[in-house]
Amino acid sequence: MAAGDELQLLGAWFSPYVIRVKIALGLKGLSYEYIEQDLFNKSDLLLRSNPVHKTVPVLIHGGRPVCESLTILQYIDEVWVGTGSPPLITGDAYDRATALFWAAYVDDKFFNSWKAIAWTTRGEQRAEAFKNAVPVVETLEQAFRECSQGKAFFGGDAVGLVDVALGSFLMGIKTIDEVNGTNLLDETKFPGLAGWAKRFLAVDAVKEAMPDAGKLLEEYKTSMAKWVASKSPGFSWTR
Amino acid sequence: MAAGDELQLLGAWFSPYVIRVKIALGLKGLSYEYIEQDLFNKSDLLLRSNPVHKTVPVLIHGGRPVCESLTILQYIDEVWVGTGSPPLITGDAYDRATALFWAAYVDDKFFNSWKAIAWTTRGEQRAEAFKNAVPVVETLEQAFRECSQGKAFFGGDAVGLVDVALGSFLMGIKTIDEVNGTNLLDETKFPGLAGWAKRFLAVDAVKEAMPDAGKLLEEYKTSMAKWVASKSPGFSWTR
Repeated sequence: MAAGDELQLLGAWFSPYVIRVKIALGLKGLSYEYIEQDLFNKSDLLLRSNPVHKTVPVLIHGGRPVCESLTILQYIDEVWVGTGSPPLITGDAYDRATALFWAAYVDDKFFNSWKAIAWTTRGEQRAEAFKNAVPVVETLEQAFRECSQGKAFFGGDAVGLVDVALGSFLMGIKTIDEVNGTNLLDETKFPGLAGWAKRFLAVDAVKEAMPDAGKLLEEYKTSMAKWVASKSPGFSWTR
Repeated sequence: MAAGDELQLLGAWFSPYVIRVKIALGLKGLSYEYIEQDLFNKSDLLLRSNPVHKTVPVLIHGGRPVCESLTILQYIDEVWVGTGSPPLITGDAYDRATALFWAAYVDDKFFNSWKAIAWTTRGEQRAEAFKNAVPVVETLEQAFRECSQGKAFFGGDAVGLVDVALGSFLMGIKTIDEVNGTNLLDETKFPGLAGWAKRFLAVDAVKEAMPDAGKLLEEYKTSMAKWVASKSPGFSWTR
């Protein structure tokens, strides 16, 4: 990598938004310095790099910070065009608009409905939240059918923006499913998404970016215990 | 315009998100059919064009719908490149990421802080909401300084994505200021933004896209009265 072209990623290992950036950097075959952040005691580098939101991920490229995961993915796609895997966004302006639409759907509708399952300690509320999330997943199942056109990924034959956006939550989904005894991406109900999830998790760059399932489960249990004690989720890593 | 290239815009005249699209189409000098939507009795065309969110704006281009205002702006910018005014997003990948960052800030932080002022009928809550919005506007004042580099607009010499994103709220801000006896973009506190607002509102495509101030004030008062009666804002036009 040329001088002035150095890459640093400020992240928190369990954050799906950080995982997105790791996947994109991996797909492009880029090397970078990963700097884990303590979100309860933020570093000067993080505060200086993202003074507005003070959140991760931040990608620092040649000293200049880029914030917010979907914007970072587009930035990577644009700067390292022709590098590594096919672009995350392919096709014409309409295809681009469609990808942005579904990525926004993941960040707004899907995340909020899934968060409601994950961030409650009360069984009844959790069951209600799970019920509310089902139509959101149904919409994503249909989106997968439309976007993939029978191919392996939302992006077609190769991993695209929507794959990375939604796929970054897969380990989190598994964790919450394990705790709750549920199966959000049930393959009888959502055969498209269930198959997609298996294929996505088998991609090398994805495998390398994903956190360890056991460690994530431990982190979730610890966070929830702290939350119950403090009455605050204490999260500040979106988005 | 070539056959198959027809443009229709589904909108609600008072929606800042629809105003954005009108401004962009105006800047590009594009003609289109504007179809006003009744958001309390949604048309088949709207439900078919945006089945996921059922919201305006929707731009239908050659029969294909594009949804969500910031995505529509990028779509217009990409399809009609070299048409009308300079592009809404200029420069390199970093400039693009910066524009997307501030446009997202407008949609998340600014809109939510301003909504809290607009959508309450209680004076005390409103005063508190106004106080909370001030630091958000301060951040935008600083963003204006950094992005404009002494030029007229966030986009430099010409109107850009962030100008349209924030500027679409200007008539709404004036309306709420009038009702509340406040001045959110006070020119002694925020000289950059106050000057920018005047320049932005003087752009022909902006003047043509903006709703009438008196009509907007009337609409706001009617909506608030309905809200007080029904205990629900009844809004569904984001974003």
